[in-house]
Amino acid sequence: MPTQTFSWEHRVTYAECTLGNHVYYARFLDMLETARGELFRHLGRTFLHWQENDTIFPVVECQLRYRGAARYDAVLTIELWITTAAKVRLDFAYHIKGPDGRLLIEAETKHVCTTPEDKPKRLPDELIAAVTPYLSDPQEP
Amino acid sequence: MPTQTFSWEHRVTYAECTLGNHVYYARFLDMLETARGELFRHLGRTFLHWQENDTIFPVVECQLRYRGAARYDAVLTIELWITTAAKVRLDFAYHIKGPDGRLLIEAETKHVCTTPEDKPKRLPDELIAAVTPYLSDPQEP
Amino acid sequence: MPTQTFSWEHRVTYAECTLGNHVYYARFLDMLETARGELFRHLGRTFLHWQENDTIFPVVECQLRYRGAARYDAVLTIELWITTAAKVRLDFAYHIKGPDGRLLIEAETKHVCTTPEDKPKRLPDELIAAVTPYLSDPQEP
Amino acid sequence: MPTQTFSWEHRVTYAECTLGNHVYYARFLDMLETARGELFRHLGRTFLHWQENDTIFPVVECQLRYRGAARYDAVLTIELWITTAAKVRLDFAYHIKGPDGRLLIEAETKHVCTTPEDKPKRLPDELIAAVTPYLSDPQEP
Repeated sequence: MPTQTFSWEHRVTYAECTLGNHVYYARFLDMLETARGELFRHLGRTFLHWQENDTIFPVVECQLRYRGAARYDAVLTIELWITTAAKVRLDFAYHIKGPDGRLLIEAETKHVCTTPEDKPKRLPDELIAAVTPYLSDPQEP
Repeated sequence: MPTQTFSWEHRVTYAECTLGNHVYYARFLDMLETARGELFRHLGRTFLHWQENDTIFPVVECQLRYRGAARYDAVLTIELWITTAAKVRLDFAYHIKGPDGRLLIEAETKHVCTTPEDKPKRLPDELIAAVTPYLSDPQEP
Repeated sequence: MPTQTFSWEHRVTYAECTLGNHVYYARFLDMLETARGELFRHLGRTFLHWQENDTIFPVVECQLRYRGAARYDAVLTIELWITTAAKVRLDFAYHIKGPDGRLLIEAETKHVCTTPEDKPKRLPDELIAAVTPYLSDPQEP
Repeated sequence: MPTQTFSWEHRVTYAECTLGNHVYYARFLDMLETARGELFRHLGRTFLHWQENDTIFPVVECQLRYRGAARYDAVLTIELWITTAAKVRLDFAYHIKGPDGRLLIEAETKHVCTTPEDKPKRLPDELIAAVTPYLSDPQEP
């Protein structure tokens, strides 16, 4: 884990649940998007800002491990940090925790930095500087 | 009801269900979009064709009446027809029926014909001709 | 409009958008669910509380009028109030406004009060009392 | 790859797309669920059958690699097969291909076999027998 993680809370809705009173497995990816977006806002430049400056971060890989079920109306805490911010790569790691602090989901999403026409471009220096406090030691999980 | 209706089948997934084993109320709008798209394909010109010819049909109003619950793995039949196809307006009506033929959802969606820049334009004559067999008598429901 | 309305803010995500940079027409129903849930929480009893007390509020009808597009990353304000709270009926009205205060969506959702087995039941007196400040005059829109 | 794969086609809707005319990254998990369900139906026993017999297959892990964008109205082909079917584990692998046969998504989902109360149980022998033709050699990807 890095020096700092960013946290975002999300309350589970009926829209996200499926049979058996738990969040449908795909809906966590929607939550991860929201949390990433809020981290960027917190860092001072939103995804919208970067998009308006011809810089987007399409996902190239994601992985989720489901450790426990998330229930309707529960407030989940999404903790996230950066695992790679170098060259054209920007990778995030996430823990989603239940109301009692129990780890429900471990996830990673891996992104490339590109133009809107899908041409890879180096991460802006300003972005690398901004994410550094949230960057984990590469030896760590 | 018009001379002809168009039918499209859809099998309910876990993704669409919520607590209590029924389809979440918003997900029917996704099904209606699919059914409209397939009607247009059947008529010979897809929404993609029209979009590529600078003609889109944004929704301006929708209404759904929920008469019964749709269950996981059920095959629903979406019957649809046209209630208005004139000037800049294109309106659809829908019945969603369960596996036993029972009416579960009655719906309408109302659309305008516009350019991609949101400027209203008259429905193409070719489209009006194509939808005519699916057009209900205005006196009818 | 009633004496009081309840407001809930929502920031638009990529997950909710579709082609042409606007929120997909069905996703507003998800937002309305969240706003209803937060109004109930504000009133002192959540939907989860009622559900655990064998009282649910399935939707029987909804209607949306789309007045303008909601864009990625915009903060929408969902204002809502009650239009009926009597016998077995509970109806909500909503205005969704854009960042500049412009009205984007007008909506209504109509619900019945039932047991989890779909048997209609009268609205709890406690609930009627709680929603009264948010109840619009029936003569009004 | 195993002796046999199962294929399922899916046409991309507006509901699944986001900005930039491509399928939102989470929506592929919905498609994978549909494809798994249809493989089971093809094998003779649906997920609903197993669920009604107190046997469910909750996902414990998933991974997606995004190789290319899926566009509105494209017909995608989801090829899937089994990578593990032993003891309490059932794992699937998937290739999602575009209309031109190009590989867009590689994915895996890993599941456990449990009771509805989350107690692990061995895969039914009947299920293991049914999936065997779709089981890849463990040395293979």
